[in-house]
Amino acid sequence: MIDVALFGAGRIGNIHAGNVARQPGVRLRYVVDVDGKAAQALAQKYGAQVGDAERAFADGEVAAVLIASSTDTHAEYILRAAKARKAIFCEKPVDLALERARTCAEAVHAANVPCLIGFQRRYDPTFAALKARIDDGAIGTPEMLVVTSRDPGAPPVDYIKRSGGIFKDMLIHDFDIFRWILADEAASVYATGSCLTDPAIEGAGDIDATAVTIRTRHGRLAQINTIRRAAYGYDQRFEVIGAKGMLQAGNHRPTEVMFWSSDAIGADKPEHFFLERYRAAYAIEMAHFFDVLAGRAAARTSIDDGVEALALAEAATTSWREKRIVEI
Amino acid sequence: MIDVALFGAGRIGNIHAGNVARQPGVRLRYVVDVDGKAAQALAQKYGAQVGDAERAFADGEVAAVLIASSTDTHAEYILRAAKARKAIFCEKPVDLALERARTCAEAVHAANVPCLIGFQRRYDPTFAALKARIDDGAIGTPEMLVVTSRDPGAPPVDYIKRSGGIFKDMLIHDFDIFRWILADEAASVYATGSCLTDPAIEGAGDIDATAVTIRTRHGRLAQINTIRRAAYGYDQRFEVIGAKGMLQAGNHRPTEVMFWSSDAIGADKPEHFFLERYRAAYAIEMAHFFDVLAGRAAARTSIDDGVEALALAEAATTSWREKRIVEI
Amino acid sequence: MIDVALFGAGRIGNIHAGNVARQPGVRLRYVVDVDGKAAQALAQKYGAQVGDAERAFADGEVAAVLIASSTDTHAEYILRAAKARKAIFCEKPVDLALERARTCAEAVHAANVPCLIGFQRRYDPTFAALKARIDDGAIGTPEMLVVTSRDPGAPPVDYIKRSGGIFKDMLIHDFDIFRWILADEAASVYATGSCLTDPAIEGAGDIDATAVTIRTRHGRLAQINTIRRAAYGYDQRFEVIGAKGMLQAGNHRPTEVMFWSSDAIGADKPEHFFLERYRAAYAIEMAHFFDVLAGRAAARTSIDDGVEALALAEAATTSWREKRIVEI
Amino acid sequence: MIDVALFGAGRIGNIHAGNVARQPGVRLRYVVDVDGKAAQALAQKYGAQVGDAERAFADGEVAAVLIASSTDTHAEYILRAAKARKAIFCEKPVDLALERARTCAEAVHAANVPCLIGFQRRYDPTFAALKARIDDGAIGTPEMLVVTSRDPGAPPVDYIKRSGGIFKDMLIHDFDIFRWILADEAASVYATGSCLTDPAIEGAGDIDATAVTIRTRHGRLAQINTIRRAAYGYDQRFEVIGAKGMLQAGNHRPTEVMFWSSDAIGADKPEHFFLERYRAAYAIEMAHFFDVLAGRAAARTSIDDGVEALALAEAATTSWREKRIVEI
Repeated sequence: MIDVALFGAGRIGNIHAGNVARQPGVRLRYVVDVDGKAAQALAQKYGAQVGDAERAFADGEVAAVLIASSTDTHAEYILRAAKARKAIFCEKPVDLALERARTCAEAVHAANVPCLIGFQRRYDPTFAALKARIDDGAIGTPEMLVVTSRDPGAPPVDYIKRSGGIFKDMLIHDFDIFRWILADEAASVYATGSCLTDPAIEGAGDIDATAVTIRTRHGRLAQINTIRRAAYGYDQRFEVIGAKGMLQAGNHRPTEVMFWSSDAIGADKPEHFFLERYRAAYAIEMAHFFDVLAGRAAARTSIDDGVEALALAEAATTSWREKRIVEI
Repeated sequence: MIDVALFGAGRIGNIHAGNVARQPGVRLRYVVDVDGKAAQALAQKYGAQVGDAERAFADGEVAAVLIASSTDTHAEYILRAAKARKAIFCEKPVDLALERARTCAEAVHAANVPCLIGFQRRYDPTFAALKARIDDGAIGTPEMLVVTSRDPGAPPVDYIKRSGGIFKDMLIHDFDIFRWILADEAASVYATGSCLTDPAIEGAGDIDATAVTIRTRHGRLAQINTIRRAAYGYDQRFEVIGAKGMLQAGNHRPTEVMFWSSDAIGADKPEHFFLERYRAAYAIEMAHFFDVLAGRAAARTSIDDGVEALALAEAATTSWREKRIVEI
Repeated sequence: MIDVALFGAGRIGNIHAGNVARQPGVRLRYVVDVDGKAAQALAQKYGAQVGDAERAFADGEVAAVLIASSTDTHAEYILRAAKARKAIFCEKPVDLALERARTCAEAVHAANVPCLIGFQRRYDPTFAALKARIDDGAIGTPEMLVVTSRDPGAPPVDYIKRSGGIFKDMLIHDFDIFRWILADEAASVYATGSCLTDPAIEGAGDIDATAVTIRTRHGRLAQINTIRRAAYGYDQRFEVIGAKGMLQAGNHRPTEVMFWSSDAIGADKPEHFFLERYRAAYAIEMAHFFDVLAGRAAARTSIDDGVEALALAEAATTSWREKRIVEI
Repeated sequence: MIDVALFGAGRIGNIHAGNVARQPGVRLRYVVDVDGKAAQALAQKYGAQVGDAERAFADGEVAAVLIASSTDTHAEYILRAAKARKAIFCEKPVDLALERARTCAEAVHAANVPCLIGFQRRYDPTFAALKARIDDGAIGTPEMLVVTSRDPGAPPVDYIKRSGGIFKDMLIHDFDIFRWILADEAASVYATGSCLTDPAIEGAGDIDATAVTIRTRHGRLAQINTIRRAAYGYDQRFEVIGAKGMLQAGNHRPTEVMFWSSDAIGADKPEHFFLERYRAAYAIEMAHFFDVLAGRAAARTSIDDGVEALALAEAATTSWREKRIVEI
């Protein structure tokens, strides 16, 4: 039996707890959260106990920690978990500061513990199937990538102020997709953007719409377009082209109903937001984490992926702020 | 130079005249219509002269006639054209009476003139491409056919009264599709229907919605569903299944615009009606007719196809009226 | 806590057991199966005990029975459950004999216990959303229904021999869809069919491809086309038309990957078969059953729905065998 | 009767000649080409005469010129036509040198003659319908644009050497789309690219894949991705997002056949290349030109559009060559 401590009893913590409950041979032992009520409710639902970090890290029975708490706690928990030689699953980003993220990576490598970063999109059935086809050679070497990543609405400005900015908060997933799909590293990054939807976001020193271009070391090209407010919902598509063809990952729809009216032929909008769109991905991701712990699978992401995506987010932020191309 | 006489200066006559004008080496010589003004306008547009049937059939320069006049004139014109040994293109149906249609076919065969019936759907790029794939073996032997054939609105009741009923007026095209796609002949026909859209149609002794099932001599199955009023427009689809897969023919849309709104993702409705949907088909059909005359192509339809589709329409009418399965 | 006895530890029994395990306040107490090993494995997986029918029906703690055993046991278990005043969930069909099914319905009504029949398609997210739109008036009164229902492959001939024939085994779901969507009862049924895929099916006195037409009391029309072998997979579509438009229920695909090659633009085939296609439906159905038991919902199907669908299957069988239209 | 002189008897000249022939009240009088045989063939086909530039410009009967000759002749013919006060239709680009293009624009304005540049995409039914919906307010103010513009194959390297580079040869159309759809002017341009398909293109000092980002004066964002070799054909899509939703322009397909096989559900690839994809656009464009001449319509493009698109192409070329963001 693998015992697990969960840090964070918010929305994403709840999802992970539910998925942990479905893993055979895995038991949720502690739920840790600054919000005692939330911790209590979640612990009770899954037969766990409310704990504090001290106790969770000290408990030798705890073999793995899931870090789904606020971003500013990630690095500390990673460092403590590495020191305690516990396997780590941590939500993105590792930290808002690249240096601190690198320190975490070093600690993880020194401790030689698994550390998966929550880039759940890699486990999405559509995205994973697309990647498998690339690996099977369907399109030859991937050469160009176009990523569309749009949210149905912006988070509260208070959240945005603490978020590290749109590139670290929102596009970090897209930067990971870029590295994963093109299987290459950035040579240069150009980012521009605007505040198109809410002046309060500009007031917070951020933007809500971006256009990013990455050129890789092998000369491959990626473009990412994002906006915080897509009236029609959560838009998560990408397409990748190689000499032999193109692969497209489309949105998922809640149902396959079509309505043919006197106006138009209408289909469902995409799944509402990330909790719906990536429900399957979160479950597969958590199963993968425990497969890794059980030696049934090699880890599909590492803390280095978290660091590299963060480095791209930082480069993009610099490019946008300083209005220049950032060479890497 | 091939000289042509056109009977009928209505909507479909206009389309044929326009397509004749695009054939190299073909000249529209006469336009014949009981409506002198319509004949005059059309003749003038294409540099032809207004004629009467007598003159058109007597003129030795006229090598081909296009019969696009009212249904009750078709048989007479076919018989006269056969007698005058002119090539014939005739709109469906050959006649409303099966016996008379058979008499026409005998005359045509005796005269040994080409006689194409205006089953324009066979020339539609989508339908023709689908048929070519069947002939290439893509799905193996075609075994089941489902035809969806719906009009955007019913014609005036006065038209319906003279139309021979929905099976001869509307489904005759679908019966031809059936014979063409399944490449087999009917062994039994079952038809039922209702008047769902306008009681005046029932008053005229007709129905506006039908469900037809045909079983072929080889045990293949076809279902046809039709309605005179589809709020979303002209719906012309069919699908055919064989041991190796299925081929579907979808509707054509005016544009490929998609609108992603807060309600739905919307695409264009189908092309409005047959004049739009089959614009390309009419042009290809007419080119084919003159290719046949020039010996560049073998005729893709014959008057026998017109007779057989009519026989099916008659069987369906009997099945519906007498509430019984009609064995053929 | 609601205690449940499950009859049948096969594929569908396993699915129901898994879904029972997710219902709060519900406990799987007994698993009953003639195959002791299968019962044991399933019982162990969910902390239940292997039981026999005697014990399960006698146990006063058991409030509900799930009947997922072979068809020939359904009626007996329903009758015993009704007598024991336990709530019933039973897979289709109620029985292969219509009279016996009616006897079951009378017993259930007399006992006044809930009895849901496993028409899981009614709970499918796509089908249920479509039905909700009809109920909201999106298309007006539903007038015509076209159902496409095709399996990826035929079951073993031994199964077919005991199945009651294609109409009771396969189309019974489609007959239920018909009643549910058109909200009307059949006035006449016509069915024809062929053995197109495997002569052994014909040898067993059955067919593997059918075309069914139903005319309702209000003159509405339905067509159903089925085949036991669709090379491209499990095809479960229907469309319904009313004065204001059409609603279509499309297939579900495993992923939303598109591959644009030098040959074609390719999308995924449909979900493989019913276990995949209706995974969500089975879960929602079981949650609904316990919602009904808890008084949180009114039952969405009754044993009468099971009887009526069976009556249609019997009428279709008669129509096919006797080559006649069956008036109801 | 409007008499027309056509310069250039190549592929596009042939298309324009065919479309001129369909305009009532318009007559092709001269065909001018350095290739006498091509000029002769085209002139003969449409009842025109072979001319030389001198004669065509001197002929007072010629009211309009169509310039479809090689790019290096465009400016000279525009200047001569302006001087002779003839209406002008000229293929893109006005010239490879921005200064010379501006000189042409001045001459045209001074002469006050209509001068339409051949940005045929504006007349494409899909693109024009999308633009009309923007103008109707469907999505609110357009804020972000993503353009996908991919060719099925690269032209010969000899052509590329004289083409002015990919930005002036291929993307000039996309720059025009950008200006037309976002209804705003560029404030900054960033372009990068690679030679991914054929080293000979690199040898010619050009690239075959590009990623361009434009930020407008109002802070709107556009991204353009292009490649000279898309295995699946000519890919011409764009999408534009505003506060109220998104509009997408999809590819056109030759037919609406779908093939459901044991591998995938396949649809047609896009129309092969620009001659097929924009066949309707070329016809509508030419009709529009003569509508303008007849006073029936206001010109939908001007020579200034040609100059501005060229300026963007030049800025992009500079950005790519000098690896810097170009402010405008």
